[in-house]
Amino acid sequence: MKEMMKSWRHVFKLDPDRELDDRSLDAVCMSGTDAIMVGGSSGVTYENTIDLLSRVRHYELPCVQEVSDMESIVPGFDLYLIPMVLNSSNPAWIVGHQQQAIERFGYLIPWELLVTEGYIVLNADSTVAQLTDAYTELEPLGVVAYAQVADKLMSLPIVYLEYSGTYGDMETVRAVHEELEDAQLIYGGGIKDLHTAQQAAAVSDTIVVGNIIYENLEQALQTVQVVK
Amino acid sequence: MKEMMKSWRHVFKLDPDRELDDRSLDAVCMSGTDAIMVGGSSGVTYENTIDLLSRVRHYELPCVQEVSDMESIVPGFDLYLIPMVLNSSNPAWIVGHQQQAIERFGYLIPWELLVTEGYIVLNADSTVAQLTDAYTELEPLGVVAYAQVADKLMSLPIVYLEYSGTYGDMETVRAVHEELEDAQLIYGGGIKDLHTAQQAAAVSDTIVVGNIIYENLEQALQTVQVVK
Repeated sequence: MKEMMKSWRHVFKLDPDRELDDRSLDAVCMSGTDAIMVGGSSGVTYENTIDLLSRVRHYELPCVQEVSDMESIVPGFDLYLIPMVLNSSNPAWIVGHQQQAIERFGYLIPWELLVTEGYIVLNADSTVAQLTDAYTELEPLGVVAYAQVADKLMSLPIVYLEYSGTYGDMETVRAVHEELEDAQLIYGGGIKDLHTAQQAAAVSDTIVVGNIIYENLEQALQTVQVVK
Repeated sequence: MKEMMKSWRHVFKLDPDRELDDRSLDAVCMSGTDAIMVGGSSGVTYENTIDLLSRVRHYELPCVQEVSDMESIVPGFDLYLIPMVLNSSNPAWIVGHQQQAIERFGYLIPWELLVTEGYIVLNADSTVAQLTDAYTELEPLGVVAYAQVADKLMSLPIVYLEYSGTYGDMETVRAVHEELEDAQLIYGGGIKDLHTAQQAAAVSDTIVVGNIIYENLEQALQTVQVVK
């Protein structure tokens, strides 16, 4: 599954803390997207995560959990994505939470299912930026440098440019994409229709489409055309 | 050279900021050690580093620089070891300095010569612990957990247990060694004679012998017997 993940071009990200009726979930899962990612920055619990997982499991597509909080880790996902927020001002979000989780639950961890993401959080106003105390005042070259720390110094399999809630600077995304040697570049933030999806897909390996699912399902579904 | 480094069992660490006469340097370099590591936590400059490198280069053994400060990076070493201090309370010592160096000098960096070290600094009273604001109040399992972050989440080639200035808890070192899957375990700190060298070598992949060179050269030279 880790290998398969590299080929994903389009992922829908579902937030366990937000409502999605069965018909909408069916449309999302049958859309032709490559995978479902489950996670969010606030209000994610074990209960609402397991509820969402069990609903997505009626479909055949891969379903992975992006872990933001140990309490909400649910067994049964195909993979667990572990973010390290590289531009956090708080060591806890870079390596500390991960270290504590391993200290407490190391013997239970299915290491072979973990995929570490080098996260770079770039929208200062987003919940995730505030939660992780991210330093977002970066020049494009500064963003590229964080990506190279992840790719070349740390050999992380994924660099995740997270513009959560806003559409990113595509020139910065392109610059990162050009400098990455091995890491897969995931782009997330502000994709709201086919046009923005196409632009982001042109400068990254994988795009993540989230909020628009809850705001305009029709437009969200159109973004899948980038992989067709 | 990166591959070769994995086979090193014994390394002498020389501090550019400390005096070592030619005869002593000759004894160190002809001792049978696997390599010379050049670096220190304070007073390291471009000038004293290049001076030491040029003296060591009269000998055939590998010579690597452990980079603690961008200003003192000198061309001509076989490898450059880049520490990430995982238990630092300051993000700058985990990823920040590295990111800034790449942002400023990325195009000059010989990536193929870099080796990233997951540093865990464990002697609270040491210069390096104070410089990096290291959180040293760790249970053995907490140290193991940091090592696993480096080995399993970050895939770093090296975990470096740095007890700088004091002899470490060998049970903790052993526990780390047993849990590492791929990373090479380097132990440094307080090795002052053959006995302490043997104990540390028994629970790690590579031992680093430093201070004792300047305090008791004869005893320092005896530590090389662990690899003979």
